[in-house]
Amino acid sequence: MKALVFDGAAAHVLDRPEPTPSGELAIVRVALAGVCRTDLELCRGYMDFRGVLGHEFVGTVADGPDAWRGARVVGEINFGCGACDWCRGGLARHCPSRRVQGIAGADGAFAELLAVPAAVLHRVPDGVPDRVAVFAEPVAAAFEVLEQLGDVSDRRALVLGDGKLGLLVAQVLMAAGARVTLAGRHAEKLALAERLGLQAGRPEPGADLLVDATGAPGALREALALVRPRGTIVLKTTVAEEHRLELATAVVNEVTIVGSRCGPFEPALAALAGGTVRVDPLLDSVYDLADGVEAFAHAARPGALKVLVAPAG
Amino acid sequence: MKALVFDGAAAHVLDRPEPTPSGELAIVRVALAGVCRTDLELCRGYMDFRGVLGHEFVGTVADGPDAWRGARVVGEINFGCGACDWCRGGLARHCPSRRVQGIAGADGAFAELLAVPAAVLHRVPDGVPDRVAVFAEPVAAAFEVLEQLGDVSDRRALVLGDGKLGLLVAQVLMAAGARVTLAGRHAEKLALAERLGLQAGRPEPGADLLVDATGAPGALREALALVRPRGTIVLKTTVAEEHRLELATAVVNEVTIVGSRCGPFEPALAALAGGTVRVDPLLDSVYDLADGVEAFAHAARPGALKVLVAPAG
Repeated sequence: MKALVFDGAAAHVLDRPEPTPSGELAIVRVALAGVCRTDLELCRGYMDFRGVLGHEFVGTVADGPDAWRGARVVGEINFGCGACDWCRGGLARHCPSRRVQGIAGADGAFAELLAVPAAVLHRVPDGVPDRVAVFAEPVAAAFEVLEQLGDVSDRRALVLGDGKLGLLVAQVLMAAGARVTLAGRHAEKLALAERLGLQAGRPEPGADLLVDATGAPGALREALALVRPRGTIVLKTTVAEEHRLELATAVVNEVTIVGSRCGPFEPALAALAGGTVRVDPLLDSVYDLADGVEAFAHAARPGALKVLVAPAG
Repeated sequence: MKALVFDGAAAHVLDRPEPTPSGELAIVRVALAGVCRTDLELCRGYMDFRGVLGHEFVGTVADGPDAWRGARVVGEINFGCGACDWCRGGLARHCPSRRVQGIAGADGAFAELLAVPAAVLHRVPDGVPDRVAVFAEPVAAAFEVLEQLGDVSDRRALVLGDGKLGLLVAQVLMAAGARVTLAGRHAEKLALAERLGLQAGRPEPGADLLVDATGAPGALREALALVRPRGTIVLKTTVAEEHRLELATAVVNEVTIVGSRCGPFEPALAALAGGTVRVDPLLDSVYDLADGVEAFAHAARPGALKVLVAPAG
């Protein structure tokens, strides 16, 4: 089968052996897979990954456990051991011996076929098309903010960053009742935000709650100047670079800074089915898997929205 | 009257006019005042302060509102406007137009007489001697950790830093039911910690809750390596230096970082009265106000514990 493989220096479309089912391993025929900013970071050396890239997908179970065969599915990306306290508590995403699909120790979704533990699969609700369902993973990451913060209704929320994740987090916060402003540097994305019903504008000080979805290492410094005393900053940015910042402001103002990564799939799928989070406007373009390298180059362009890869062409 | 004044370059004992009462301003005859690490930072330029230093005191109200005259008191250090939402909500310590005693816009306690708004005063319970009551402000700062985190019972808590604040925070957490380890670099202070009933030792990874009371800018990096996924780091260190750190660990492990400053006085006074927090072993030495400059030099020595100044000699 064809797959997009990172060899430590560059990504290439190569022929790879097809995965085979065993035990609780399901084989998914990938319909669509999304290029994430993290994929671009992996190609710059983040996590020292080698193998098939890709951790956002929708597809159909071609083989594996009977209960899943034929199901249209999306999947969580952390493959836990299944036995530790984290896994038993429903937080396999923090399992200390986890593998992470397309990121650490497990091949990913830019391939015709993908092997995943059935435990990470979620059925896609009828009526949610593939091009929407493929956003389940980043939408789940946006819902993680709600899972961590609880009730945000009526809170003044500022989302820094008008990229894909910023646009998703802003929609999730708005749907949960927060008064959201999205701030960014791209006029066309801010216009898109307004079409999504979001208030877009310049960041003003005094936010109760601020989400850094910029992907830039300097954003925390700006965030500390914008959040109110006793306010909360959610960090969504994972970059390899070091931050330089003076944290006395965080101490004096008693700010809470919360790191936030992967999130729960069920509310994400419900929001995609119900239309409270809209992803169609975030779709940029779709590439054949054979053109996967071009797809990555496109995704890396400034201002690019979601680039998808279709292994079936 | 005599007072210890920082003039922007150095601290000197000078003659200053006595403060006079007016309205809700109380005049306190200072019995003891404590030298805090922040005082040493102020003498290095932190906050660009000029005036009488000192924000930890116990004394007797010599003049002012009738209800307070003759009372033995300690006092909160943030003087709020009294009218804003923060002040009305009981959080004058975040009032945006606050003055801070001996730190920002208000003269402090290294003086024979001290003028403070009566609103910040707390009566010292009978049976709590002056040399214990003078610790109310730093003990309140330790209780702030509990106010921010809520129930800590049975949680594995690691306190980094065996200085005065670390020893107080560790005691407060232990009294609240946490399983506390105190880690530091000074054998004699770790021995002192053990005499206080604390477990002292090398820091081990996996803490649910970690308090940085080191006063050192590099500690957050160490803390991120020691706290468990989804754990909490409380920052008590205010230093002017920049931190350099790679925050991807905080994001991947979904760590919460909480800035923490001044705290509630009533639980602090109750703990001092009840003996659940012991401060006698933290007392290093007492200087006359006339020798205030020497007191500061002593407090700046590595390993120094609490140095007190007695304006009445």
